[in-house]
Amino acid sequence: MGKKITIADVAREANVSVSTVSNLLNGRNGRMRVSTKERILEAINTLGYTPNQAARQLKTGHTPIIGLIVPSVANPFYGIFARHVESAALKLGFQVLLGNSDRSPEREYQYAEELWGYGVRGLIFGSSLFQVSHLDNLISRGLHVVAFERATEFEDGTQIDSVGIDNNLAARLATKHLLSLGHKRIGFLSGPIKTVSRLDRLAGYQSAMRDAGIASDPKLVWDIAPLGNSYGDSDAVDLGRQGAQELLSQPDPPTAIFAINDMIAFGAYAGANDMGLIVPDDLSVVGVDDITLTEIVQPALTTIRQPIEKIATVAVERLVARLTETTSEAQGHQIFPPQLIVRSSTIRVPAQNDN
Amino acid sequence: MGKKITIADVAREANVSVSTVSNLLNGRNGRMRVSTKERILEAINTLGYTPNQAARQLKTGHTPIIGLIVPSVANPFYGIFARHVESAALKLGFQVLLGNSDRSPEREYQYAEELWGYGVRGLIFGSSLFQVSHLDNLISRGLHVVAFERATEFEDGTQIDSVGIDNNLAARLATKHLLSLGHKRIGFLSGPIKTVSRLDRLAGYQSAMRDAGIASDPKLVWDIAPLGNSYGDSDAVDLGRQGAQELLSQPDPPTAIFAINDMIAFGAYAGANDMGLIVPDDLSVVGVDDITLTEIVQPALTTIRQPIEKIATVAVERLVARLTETTSEAQGHQIFPPQLIVRSSTIRVPAQNDN
Repeated sequence: MGKKITIADVAREANVSVSTVSNLLNGRNGRMRVSTKERILEAINTLGYTPNQAARQLKTGHTPIIGLIVPSVANPFYGIFARHVESAALKLGFQVLLGNSDRSPEREYQYAEELWGYGVRGLIFGSSLFQVSHLDNLISRGLHVVAFERATEFEDGTQIDSVGIDNNLAARLATKHLLSLGHKRIGFLSGPIKTVSRLDRLAGYQSAMRDAGIASDPKLVWDIAPLGNSYGDSDAVDLGRQGAQELLSQPDPPTAIFAINDMIAFGAYAGANDMGLIVPDDLSVVGVDDITLTEIVQPALTTIRQPIEKIATVAVERLVARLTETTSEAQGHQIFPPQLIVRSSTIRVPAQNDN
Repeated sequence: MGKKITIADVAREANVSVSTVSNLLNGRNGRMRVSTKERILEAINTLGYTPNQAARQLKTGHTPIIGLIVPSVANPFYGIFARHVESAALKLGFQVLLGNSDRSPEREYQYAEELWGYGVRGLIFGSSLFQVSHLDNLISRGLHVVAFERATEFEDGTQIDSVGIDNNLAARLATKHLLSLGHKRIGFLSGPIKTVSRLDRLAGYQSAMRDAGIASDPKLVWDIAPLGNSYGDSDAVDLGRQGAQELLSQPDPPTAIFAINDMIAFGAYAGANDMGLIVPDDLSVVGVDDITLTEIVQPALTTIRQPIEKIATVAVERLVARLTETTSEAQGHQIFPPQLIVRSSTIRVPAQNDN
């Protein structure tokens, strides 16, 4: 078998540059002379350079496409996730096409079916719903799916790959941080708690409160959906603002809020401001995600970082391994550790409120 | 001809619900009984219900797809633009697939060619480069293109539809607002000024300064690209931060900054903060776009609003009119008015700096 044949070997054999070979393999051959193409293809055959993916491209004439379906790129977290997925995919010779589903199973199915019709056999989902049954039909026909933030096992027994942080731990880290600063009235601010990741975060928050000997108060859990968007992904700031206003209008308001993502946390800043309160003096706030803007807002947001580039890269690599049949591993869930990043939005609870 | 045949007429004739007809027309017929499908198709034929788009779908079996290529959804402005494009497209029975190009003509061409290979005949571009020649080949074969922020006429004579704000006016509005507050040292903060829209904004800034009798100072124009991203779309906050630091480190620093978009403006907040300066006390800042977060940051950002939902909707309607051949208008550029939104990031120049 000898040593592995590389693209450089092909280039040498064909007497062209490595980038010319790469151009052909990646479909950028619109202006390539036919004689050059033939020489490269001959070199590939002579040397036996046949990564599945290159073979696939040469056979179909198309760069393979991965579909990425996220709740809404109106949330910058998903925009950044999409960019990392694309970078990882381009490195492996795949392009990415993106759709927004607002977590609607109907829209997810529509996108998946359309992409299937166009020959796309690999999808990454950026959402975490309860069930995958709406995709069973396509999965059984050979669609490969990697989900971000999704449990591996579903009621209906379908197995898919998934990647994500430990959401329960993320919520416990955030809540314990607030507890360590003396906060006892801690609000939980979320879009509708209907997804696996949101349920896990609620459970983590509740378990941290319980561990601290504090009875959970359902009045401190806010998860109403804004109008016109059943999960609040596109309206996260408005949702956080409204939720914070309502939590802070209660007779015994929270001194701290754990928001399930940074955009909702930014909304909480505005909601506190609407009520004449100052973050962090009157209200401590913690988010989740660590998007770029957390360092820019005033005060800089304490948050739970998701290692988003790493997660996106692993999601792509796993999907490509399935597509190119270079893995025979069983489907599983790969968990990444969340990390508490303390900035300026959380302080010790003021003495007068420390009741 | 009688009155227009509607989807409700079809439903009545086929003895099914309107949503069942809609499901079929939109390709959601995976679980529909064959007899139901046949009855609906028969009703459509009997009544002569034939919008081009429905006819197309029934013929191809696929929901038509529009491609959307933006510089980077890591900038929330493009995320929101993408959501509005998708909403408008879904209403017209089209789905949207999104790619990020980082404004690279090579990547733009790759996406366009791949989508063409999959049968996609309509593209919306969210960027504004100098030339369209890399797409000529596909346009001449029937690809329809609508560009956001792009001049209609190119050196090579290709005509495409485009939509966008008057970028020169946007910059003049911002600059005149700062001038009206007594600012004379006004910085211009941008990613590399290589796009039509950025050039137009620079020209508008310079003409407003000239009109006010202020000699333009090239040291106040900052447009260096951050590492690894030739246009700064994914790193806009970092870019604005670095640019503000450098502008404010000069011997005769600006008292105000006009940033070409809101994300760069947020970066300028951070850069000012790094230098121990406070916005707006020590530095006034104006952005462009009016993304959601402008109201959330402290101080709320004065900005130039782009009517983004309207622009996205018109872009989709124009493209669909081309695809369904319901327009015979010549290609043109539709301009929307920008609007100054004054918030808290701009104040009268402090007396001691009013030199």
